[in-house]
Amino acid sequence: MTSAFRPTPASIPPPNAGLALRQPKGLPPNFQPLNPLQFILRAADIYPNKVALVHSDVKYPVSYTFAVWCQRIQNLAYALIQAGIKPGDRVAIIAPNSYSCKVSDAHHGVLAAKAVPCPINTRLKPAEVAYILEHSRSSIILVDHEFVHLLPQNLKVPVIVSNDTGRPGDPYENFLSSGRAFSQERGWAGLEYDADENSAATLCYTSGTTGRPKGVVTTLRGSYLAAIANAYESRIHLESTYLWILPMFHAAGWTFPWANVFGFATQICLRTVDNSLIWKHFLQSGVTHYCGAPTVQIGIVNHPSAKKLPRPISAIIAGAAPTASLIASLEQLGITPIHVYGLTLYGPFTRNFPQAAWANLSLQERSKIMARQGHPFATAQDARVVYPPKDGTDTLVDVPRDGKTVGEIVTRGNIVMKEYFRDPEATAKAFRGGSFNSGDLAVMHPDGAVAIVDRSKDIIISGGENASSLAIEQELASHPCVLEVAVVARNSFKWGERPHAFVTLRPTSIAKWKGRHGDFEKELKAHAKERLPGFACPEWVSIVSELPKTSTGKILKFDLRKIVAKL
Amino acid sequence: MTSAFRPTPASIPPPNAGLALRQPKGLPPNFQPLNPLQFILRAADIYPNKVALVHSDVKYPVSYTFAVWCQRIQNLAYALIQAGIKPGDRVAIIAPNSYSCKVSDAHHGVLAAKAVPCPINTRLKPAEVAYILEHSRSSIILVDHEFVHLLPQNLKVPVIVSNDTGRPGDPYENFLSSGRAFSQERGWAGLEYDADENSAATLCYTSGTTGRPKGVVTTLRGSYLAAIANAYESRIHLESTYLWILPMFHAAGWTFPWANVFGFATQICLRTVDNSLIWKHFLQSGVTHYCGAPTVQIGIVNHPSAKKLPRPISAIIAGAAPTASLIASLEQLGITPIHVYGLTLYGPFTRNFPQAAWANLSLQERSKIMARQGHPFATAQDARVVYPPKDGTDTLVDVPRDGKTVGEIVTRGNIVMKEYFRDPEATAKAFRGGSFNSGDLAVMHPDGAVAIVDRSKDIIISGGENASSLAIEQELASHPCVLEVAVVARNSFKWGERPHAFVTLRPTSIAKWKGRHGDFEKELKAHAKERLPGFACPEWVSIVSELPKTSTGKILKFDLRKIVAKL
Repeated sequence: MTSAFRPTPASIPPPNAGLALRQPKGLPPNFQPLNPLQFILRAADIYPNKVALVHSDVKYPVSYTFAVWCQRIQNLAYALIQAGIKPGDRVAIIAPNSYSCKVSDAHHGVLAAKAVPCPINTRLKPAEVAYILEHSRSSIILVDHEFVHLLPQNLKVPVIVSNDTGRPGDPYENFLSSGRAFSQERGWAGLEYDADENSAATLCYTSGTTGRPKGVVTTLRGSYLAAIANAYESRIHLESTYLWILPMFHAAGWTFPWANVFGFATQICLRTVDNSLIWKHFLQSGVTHYCGAPTVQIGIVNHPSAKKLPRPISAIIAGAAPTASLIASLEQLGITPIHVYGLTLYGPFTRNFPQAAWANLSLQERSKIMARQGHPFATAQDARVVYPPKDGTDTLVDVPRDGKTVGEIVTRGNIVMKEYFRDPEATAKAFRGGSFNSGDLAVMHPDGAVAIVDRSKDIIISGGENASSLAIEQELASHPCVLEVAVVARNSFKWGERPHAFVTLRPTSIAKWKGRHGDFEKELKAHAKERLPGFACPEWVSIVSELPKTSTGKILKFDLRKIVAKL
Repeated sequence: MTSAFRPTPASIPPPNAGLALRQPKGLPPNFQPLNPLQFILRAADIYPNKVALVHSDVKYPVSYTFAVWCQRIQNLAYALIQAGIKPGDRVAIIAPNSYSCKVSDAHHGVLAAKAVPCPINTRLKPAEVAYILEHSRSSIILVDHEFVHLLPQNLKVPVIVSNDTGRPGDPYENFLSSGRAFSQERGWAGLEYDADENSAATLCYTSGTTGRPKGVVTTLRGSYLAAIANAYESRIHLESTYLWILPMFHAAGWTFPWANVFGFATQICLRTVDNSLIWKHFLQSGVTHYCGAPTVQIGIVNHPSAKKLPRPISAIIAGAAPTASLIASLEQLGITPIHVYGLTLYGPFTRNFPQAAWANLSLQERSKIMARQGHPFATAQDARVVYPPKDGTDTLVDVPRDGKTVGEIVTRGNIVMKEYFRDPEATAKAFRGGSFNSGDLAVMHPDGAVAIVDRSKDIIISGGENASSLAIEQELASHPCVLEVAVVARNSFKWGERPHAFVTLRPTSIAKWKGRHGDFEKELKAHAKERLPGFACPEWVSIVSELPKTSTGKILKFDLRKIVAKL
């Protein structure tokens, strides 16, 4: 499909191109600062002619080998330096979810200029984009033509537009070409390797439901270690093909932009989460891996094109726990779920590690265990569940390993964020007690597995009992007609709070319940009563056509709470 | 087989044992010093009941789960501390090749006491062992009962003997029990995590053919990164079973003692390289991985028990390049060779990365390419081939990528040794020019792959031409009757030097050439003439029953040179 495409002359590396940056002075022979930029240089050295990046479902399809892509990355670094970008400067990127090749380029090319990529969520409103551009003090903006309207007027920094063509004449391509010209063929040796592995790697803003978004800064060291862990845990290798469904602006694509390169995998880019295209690639392009939140996965498994895969695909799931029904659907299609848990940091921090004994469990039992967030990831360190610190102290005390006592997840180690950008107060608060305070409420099971019960605001205090909206959702989702479900607290004169469930029906079940929503409500309540204590059974059930979601696909319970507050 | 065995009471961890060491004061929440000790704690946390270590082919077979093994490691750390071991002290280990569980314990338990394991080659002579014990200033010696005779008289440091029983009453088990008692159940929290990732991890002595052995010091950071790279490149995972054929005293087992634990693999120990036992485990124990030098691999593939394997096994090969004949034999049996190259440092530093295009090559052509040492390993950094530095300068200049120009391999990065112990002069010499000077002569191919031609002393200057003894050996090994071959320079009045080949015959070919060695010599010379330039053809061929080898299985060309010097 992309055979007619020829990379621009500026993308072709010279023969015998050196693939090492200039070493900073004074490094001992046995110490190299960790830096995920190293991966693309190594891939271009070992597998120069392997297809690295494919962007086929667009008007101007392109595909790049590692050698060509690596040259483009080098060009981008020089172009940024020519544009005045200094080490540590932020480079904003506003590009499709998911992906113009430009975002992929940036994860490597901006680092090669020793600058910091700041990928911005394309689903934000112009005012939010303006806030992030201002707060990050980005010195230059790389923007996809589709999202130019998100930019504020009167910008004082350069804007480079990509028309996503990969052809000469495209402003982004011209930018790369100018970088190549500016390099005067000094090659990689004309760029300097960052001497400090604790330098900032990326700046990603949270989609914070309350207050202003916060800028999460990661380090080169953390990104290197997290990317290798992702490649290892997901088993990404030379023969792997990764499909970009997860937005790369979400926690820098959970470090998969680097993990895939570390593993020499081929990456396929998609501009939008289009389930028809996703199934086309699943069935025709040899896809082996993808990442996505459960809500995205639900869309995939329920698409009309869904069918049993000829080869298994690994789905890395985070953002929320997969329900039993989702796990069953994935497995029936030949998709192996890998359930991980992270934050807007480096992506996965814990993983649900499968145990041999689970094979003997029923799907319901197994999926309950698989919904746990599990144990620390390969290069993560501690994930603890602790009591709220007592006033006046910072000492963190672990809750017992009883699977019942609720505490907060705190993490520490090399893949914990460096800081909130320009916000020492929020940083200090997040690191209170010497660990990162996640804000996620969880229990610790006897086997050391962490299981989220809810974020603190998601607990429903019903008749004096703490009901976990997550646990209720898990049970309601096991009803065969339920597609997605969200449960929030609704005020009750008698009980204080009581659960209110919002439900979408499976496409195949909509007709069945048409005009009989009351009957469905009764049936779902009976379903709940068999599985949940009385205080946790939903008092109200609303069937809706869709659930409100954040730009990263998380269900906006905040909006649902506003609805029930008016009832 | 081991079901009747019960671990000693001191090996049983208490319920809900904490699996984290005391953190050193002042560490930020987002920084954890890299340390391979972390792996066993994580394995015991996530897979406590999985079999970690099996030692079955002995009078007292044992097997330990990760939880039990982890407790033994903790006990060892406390026992060492009770014995007066301080951070940084060396702990000598003299144990079978390959393995009492004691050596496996030491790679983790000595680190847990913040001390440095110093595994000593069991094939050395008492005087050499005495030298290493003295030079390393080891503060305590863990020794297997079979090797007590290697110890000098009048030792001033404590010696703990293991009878390799795993049963109460064994002095080593008593030592562990005393550690448990000394711990007063403080558990892992009573031990401190090393604050400095650049602390020494291991001290391994070279088997130096000339001069005194040198003590190679590795770091915790390097060991962590090298172990993860080995797990990743070899694809060691939960379902893997690793068979210990490689001596663990050889470059600390190429970091596989940690790599296997990182991957949650089961490790099977063998006290000796017994090909019958090896094949028993290959066929009956679900072995998936092992490491070994070509000379060991030759023994394996030529053993009478050798047969096509039901499941593929990955063989990590280093120490010398595998010959075409070895590659063919391995592949026919279902063994996938992974050719890596390293030094007495952390094991693998480069790897021969397979290319899709090789599938179209003949076995002869493919194995020639597979014999190259290849490109830098996953977490390695630079492997260059450089000219000898000009006198008075330290600048390293790369040879052209022409596959012809011979230079020296130099390496740098995180998995390069820290230093030669107590030898600043040798360290400075090794690091001359800001890289580690390997002493291995090589060419750089156009694709960036390094290929060793020889160590400098192995070049034969024949008629003014440089003949690589390695290249000659590769060609002679392709003769169907040749088992192993070593080529050295022999003085020639006419040519200066000329190659002399020492050959062992395959067991199946011995009868064929009995009493006709002269005929075989003619045939082998003709075989060489078809494949090599005249100056590289052996002038003399000697059939021998076995080749002299170092304790680590390398052919002792030094001894062969002594033989030809007398001819």
